[in-house]
Parts: sequence; C-alpha cells; structure tokens
Amino acid sequence: MPMVEQPLRSRVSAANDEGCDFPIQNLPFGVFSDGQGPRCGVAIGDMIVDLAECEARGLLEAGGTFRAPQLNDFIALGRAAWDRVRARLTELLAEGADEDVPLVPMDKATLHMPIRVTEFTDFYASKNHAFNVGVLFRGPENALPPQWTHMPIGYNGRASSVVVSGTDIRRPMGQVKAENGPEWTACRRLDLELELGAIVGADSAMGQRVSVEEAEQMIFGYVLLNDWSARDIQAWEYQPLGPFQSKALGTTISPWIVTQAALEPFRSEGAARVNDLLPYLREERPGFYDMTVGWTMNGQKMGETNYNVMYYSSAQQLAHHTESGCPMRVGDLLGSGTISGPTQDQTGALLEMTQGGKSPVKVNGADRTFIEDGDRIGLYGFAQGDGYRIGFGPCTGKILPAD
Amino acid sequence: MPMVEQPLRSRVSAANDEGCDFPIQNLPFGVFSDGQGPRCGVAIGDMIVDLAECEARGLLEAGGTFRAPQLNDFIALGRAAWDRVRARLTELLAEGADEDVPLVPMDKATLHMPIRVTEFTDFYASKNHAFNVGVLFRGPENALPPQWTHMPIGYNGRASSVVVSGTDIRRPMGQVKAENGPEWTACRRLDLELELGAIVGADSAMGQRVSVEEAEQMIFGYVLLNDWSARDIQAWEYQPLGPFQSKALGTTISPWIVTQAALEPFRSEGAARVNDLLPYLREERPGFYDMTVGWTMNGQKMGETNYNVMYYSSAQQLAHHTESGCPMRVGDLLGSGTISGPTQDQTGALLEMTQGGKSPVKVNGADRTFIEDGDRIGLYGFAQGDGYRIGFGPCTGKILPAD
Repeated sequence: MPMVEQPLRSRVSAANDEGCDFPIQNLPFGVFSDGQGPRCGVAIGDMIVDLAECEARGLLEAGGTFRAPQLNDFIALGRAAWDRVRARLTELLAEGADEDVPLVPMDKATLHMPIRVTEFTDFYASKNHAFNVGVLFRGPENALPPQWTHMPIGYNGRASSVVVSGTDIRRPMGQVKAENGPEWTACRRLDLELELGAIVGADSAMGQRVSVEEAEQMIFGYVLLNDWSARDIQAWEYQPLGPFQSKALGTTISPWIVTQAALEPFRSEGAARVNDLLPYLREERPGFYDMTVGWTMNGQKMGETNYNVMYYSSAQQLAHHTESGCPMRVGDLLGSGTISGPTQDQTGALLEMTQGGKSPVKVNGADRTFIEDGDRIGLYGFAQGDGYRIGFGPCTGKILPAD
Repeated sequence: MPMVEQPLRSRVSAANDEGCDFPIQNLPFGVFSDGQGPRCGVAIGDMIVDLAECEARGLLEAGGTFRAPQLNDFIALGRAAWDRVRARLTELLAEGADEDVPLVPMDKATLHMPIRVTEFTDFYASKNHAFNVGVLFRGPENALPPQWTHMPIGYNGRASSVVVSGTDIRRPMGQVKAENGPEWTACRRLDLELELGAIVGADSAMGQRVSVEEAEQMIFGYVLLNDWSARDIQAWEYQPLGPFQSKALGTTISPWIVTQAALEPFRSEGAARVNDLLPYLREERPGFYDMTVGWTMNGQKMGETNYNVMYYSSAQQLAHHTESGCPMRVGDLLGSGTISGPTQDQTGALLEMTQGGKSPVKVNGADRTFIEDGDRIGLYGFAQGDGYRIGFGPCTGKILPAD
C-alpha cells in the first residue's frame, strides 16, 4: 500500500503563499457575516469556508452547530468532532480536490466574536513579566511573589468586556491616587498586554479536579489576546483583592481560533524551572509552543518574543483552576498572562518597555511612554513551519478619547 | 374617592403567620419543580405560585418567560414588567380574592438556582470586616487599605461555582504555605462569609458609566449569599492578583430573590462616612436596608447583625463596576461583602469571630475555630415590618470531606 502524504498545498492559491497566516495546515475557526447573518467559518488563504453552507450541502456534519453566531455549540460536540471536521476540511481544501466548497472572500466579510465567552480568567505566567512588573509595583525585594514559582497565579477577569479585533476601545475614567486622597480622571497610563488566550472546549463538574493531561485534552484552541490595562487605576485599586476596573475597560481577542491540532507540530519546552512543582501541576509532555508573538503600535514593530518563554502552560493553568473543585465550562477563556522575554525589545507591555514610564520609546519618531488617544495597537503571532506558517491574523484595537 | 388600602393579609393563611418569611408584602421570585420540570414561581406562606401556569391561564402576562428554568428572561423584561406582575400577584393573593390561582405546596417542591448567573462579583463593603480581616492578614497598621473609604473594593468571582441552598459543598484541596515551600492539602481553615447578593436586572453598554441613581433602578432584587472561603489557600495565593481558588469551591445563594420593591419600606442609612466620596459614588437617597442578617452552625445561632452596618450600597457597587466602561448584564450577581458588626457576636465569618482561629467558640458544647466536615451553615435575613416580615427563607450548605 503506498504511503499517503499529508497534502501540503491548497486549492485556494493564496493559502500557499509564504507568510500567509492561513495555509491548509492551519484551518482556524471563526464567525463571520456577509450578506447573511453571522455563522461559523474557517479561514483558508484569503477566503473563508462557509461551514454552515458546507453542512447544508452535506459536505460535512456537525449537528447544525455551524449555523449559530458563535462556536460554543460546535466546540461542545467534543474532540472527536473537532478532529473529524478538521480532517474533512483538509480533504475538501487540498490542491486537486474538486468538490464544490462554498467560499467567501475574507475582505467582503465582517468578523465577529468567535465564541460567547462564558468566563474569563487571566494568568501571570511569564517570569520576566512578573518580575519586571513586580519591581515597578512593589520594589525588587518583593517583585516575584513567593508562590509564583509554585503555582500559576491568576484572577477572574470580566467576560462581558471581551471584544473582537477591530473594536475601538474607550480610554477609561477612574480613581487614581493623588496627593490629597484620590482623583477622578481619565486614565493617564493606558497599556496593552500581549497574551495568548486558551479556549476551554469541555465542561468539568463541580468538585472534579482535572489533571494536566486531562486539561490539555479540554483545550480547543488559542486566540491572541490584548488585556488592555489602566496602570494608574490598577496601582490604586489592586490591593488586596486584585485588579478590577483597571482591567475591565476591554480585552481584545483575534477573530480566528487556531486549534491545538494545528499547533501540535510546534510543541516546545517552556522556561527552565526554579523548583519542582507539586505533582498536580507536573507536565509529562511540554505544553508550550515554539511560536513568535509580538506587537505593533501605529504600524511600528515594538516588542517580539516567543510563547515558549512562559513558565506555566495553558494546561497547567486549567488544571490549577480546578484544584478547588471549581467547574469549568465550554467557552471559558484563559489568558496566558503577558508574554515577555528578558530584554526590553521582547517585552509585551509598555509598563515594562518604558520602565514604568520613565524611559520613553520612539514610535514613528515620537516619544511614547503609555498609549495616547488614536493609537492603534496590533498583536501578531505565528508558528513557523517548513514552508508554511500557522498564524492568527490581526488582533488590533484603537484607543478613543475618554468621554 | 375613597382611599384604597394596601391589602395586608393573604388568602394563603400561612402567609399571615407572624414570623413567616413570605407574607403578601414579600412575593420573592424563584425557580421550582415538582412533577413537571423547573419553572418560575413566587413564594407565598407555605405555597409557591406557579407563574408559568398563571400565565397559561391568562391570570397575568410575562411573554412566556415564566416557563424558563431561570428568571433571567423575565428579569430582562424590565422594571415595568416587574412592577406589573407584582401588582397583579398582590391582587390575586389578597385575602378575599377569588380567582383560582395555581399553588404548589413548598414542601412538595424542589427549589433550583433562581437565575443563570452571568458573572459574579464580590465586594468588601463592611468596614468592621475589612478592618478585622486586614489585621489578621496584614497587621493593624495596614489593615484597612488606603482606598477603602474612597471606593467599593471588589473582585471578579467565579460564576460557575454559585449553587443554590441545600447543595453540599466539598472541602477543597489546595496549596498552602508550609515550612519548606507549599504543601498540597485539604483545606484546614474553611470559613463562611455572610453576605447579601444583588441581582442585576438590566444591561448596560460597553463604555457606558452608570450613575448611582441609574444603578439602583437596574437592581432586580437580593439573595442571601454565603461565599465559602478557604483561608489557608487564600493566604498563600492572594497576593498580588487577589483571591482565586480559595473562593471558587462554591458560593451558596438562597433560592428566593427578594425584590427591591418589597424592601423599599426598610430603606436605611448605612455606616457613617469617614470622608466625602467622589461625586460618581454619592448617593442622594440612602441605599441600605434595615434588615437583620445572621448565621447558624449546626442549628446554633452564631453571628447576627444588620445590613445597614455596610459602608457601600449595592447601587454604589454597581455604579463603580461601570466606571471603566465595563458592561453589565442581566443575571450578574454582586456580593455585598461579608456583613459584620463591630462586636464578636456580630461577625459574619469564623476568621473574625475566632480571631484567625486563636479563640475557639462553643458550638453545641464543642470548640470550633473553622468549619469541620459535616458541619451545616445556615444564613438568615429579614426586614421586620409592622406585624409582618420580609424574609429570604433558608440559605444552607453542608461541608463534605475532601476526596
């Protein structure tokens, strides 16, 4: 029997261009609309596969879930369905395949939130970031909290303010520390956070502790995630119960969910461990990816690093999330925490890059410490394969003035 | 034209008993099932009005929302619908009224979660509690955080672990500080928190700041809320991002939502202000209620105080929640924070009552510092009127051993 080779090229020619984020090896899921209402699709090159129409034509089968304006119902079908649909799309979109596949040009479509976010949790898993920010908030002695190398520290964020790439973000008002008590002001230290977001794809029951291996099986895929942060509001509010309104102004995610399956070839070790982890957090296989992530401001490249600088994987974070018996649900979004490498040009937040606003950076010739009105922040991320790359597409947001 | 008197007595005789939580002045909303599936109801005396059946018979009108297994759809109809249904039920249930109203005996029914909790936020609004706990966690100098008298400090909790009264709670496992790094153990310092929970009854848009007056109009009603807390896990995990797994083991709410309308006659001032608040937090009318709240352990009365010891009202908390532009949604649940008066017998948590476990209290003759396996905690609350009281019914939970 002859070896069947994995098809490497797509019938959609733009998918074969070097540097295209959406080759046939990727097949990320999203929600789009054109003339008709929002429904589920998959990106391929410069096109979107209309999955609802595919199912209507009998090209694939997903219980009608692709007609929904979010992917939660499809994701809830489980891993076997994810794998089956991915395999079928790989057939349908391969070079030489000739079944008629309904495609919509991406530039004619509007992209929507890919999921209804059930709950949003944000972690703090880059050691460089945790140390750098800790120095700025608490000084070098207390920079890294004592439990940091023992557990993935996280907090519950606000799901209602998660928005899709392209949504403008309003500069928030808030309380800020001033000389005589607090002042009510527009945020003066508005920042981004470069993160990856993991989408939980299966429920766990209340009281059920999920192992790291099980947790990995529960993850459907990943988005880019910008956790906009009001640093001056944060500094005044965050003790002792953590960040609240400083992180509720908006969280931007990419419209395309890159599946775990697409990232599998890029599996990588993470940062070196300082100490052994407790057994419930130990990972048999490394749960990180060799994946470039970075951000731009008004089109200029700013910080760039690799996701594999992280100290805790999404699977470890998800396992920890259930340690108390907390139930997880399809559509839960877990932010990785800001991804920062050790050097200034590898930082994923202006707070770190400018050392708390003390060292401005040049952006298109102008000095910047924090984000100004009208600034546009873009995130990017891709895993580089042999002749193709698995990318996320854009994840951008522009800041509107406070009102 | 003669004055029409508000009917004070109900055709359901148990509703007229002194000390009954559910007189005709109350009419709290919940979700119940008997032979048929879960649907919406209102408590009256020892009976439940089957609202779905009421609508089916044309006795009242709510767009079919009472057939749902949660109240979110009804609540989303808005304040005019809440008021109309309340007024109609007051007519139907008055002494002397003779229309046939479908009633189900409460002891034949199962009570369910009254709402699908969209998101859960927990505040920290009793000055006594904040100070007492602050002393135990950080010492007397840093007990009350500097922003505490200027803003309602809160954090996002976990919605998925909110359960209805009567649900057993499993003692959590977790990381706890030990001599050489952390230890993985069953929680040894399990506690309750006596709180009131406000149910948000209207959406706000992203970027919209809601005033305190508008916020009050957005609140549908209140439940009792026990925010179970693993104090040893909390102490190790909570810096700098706030409590996480220590608060995710479970949060118990009462099955009945007491409406704002029922509590209106009990409107009260809260605690005296230490300093002026910023304008966005100022309240024209006092937003607290003169309402007794307390808790029991294995049937023994433990702490009792009044909701009007609180420093920030639910309306102030909700207004603050939107200061950054964070959108709120129907079904959001806002915990008041532990309600504690100044004296030991008025505290709403064992941490405070036993001074961090140093001073045991007697429960049915035995020493207790924190909650032991098999212990049952009950919350109660009622506003005492002239010859009637507006009560919540039971809010209980029993602790199962860790597994």
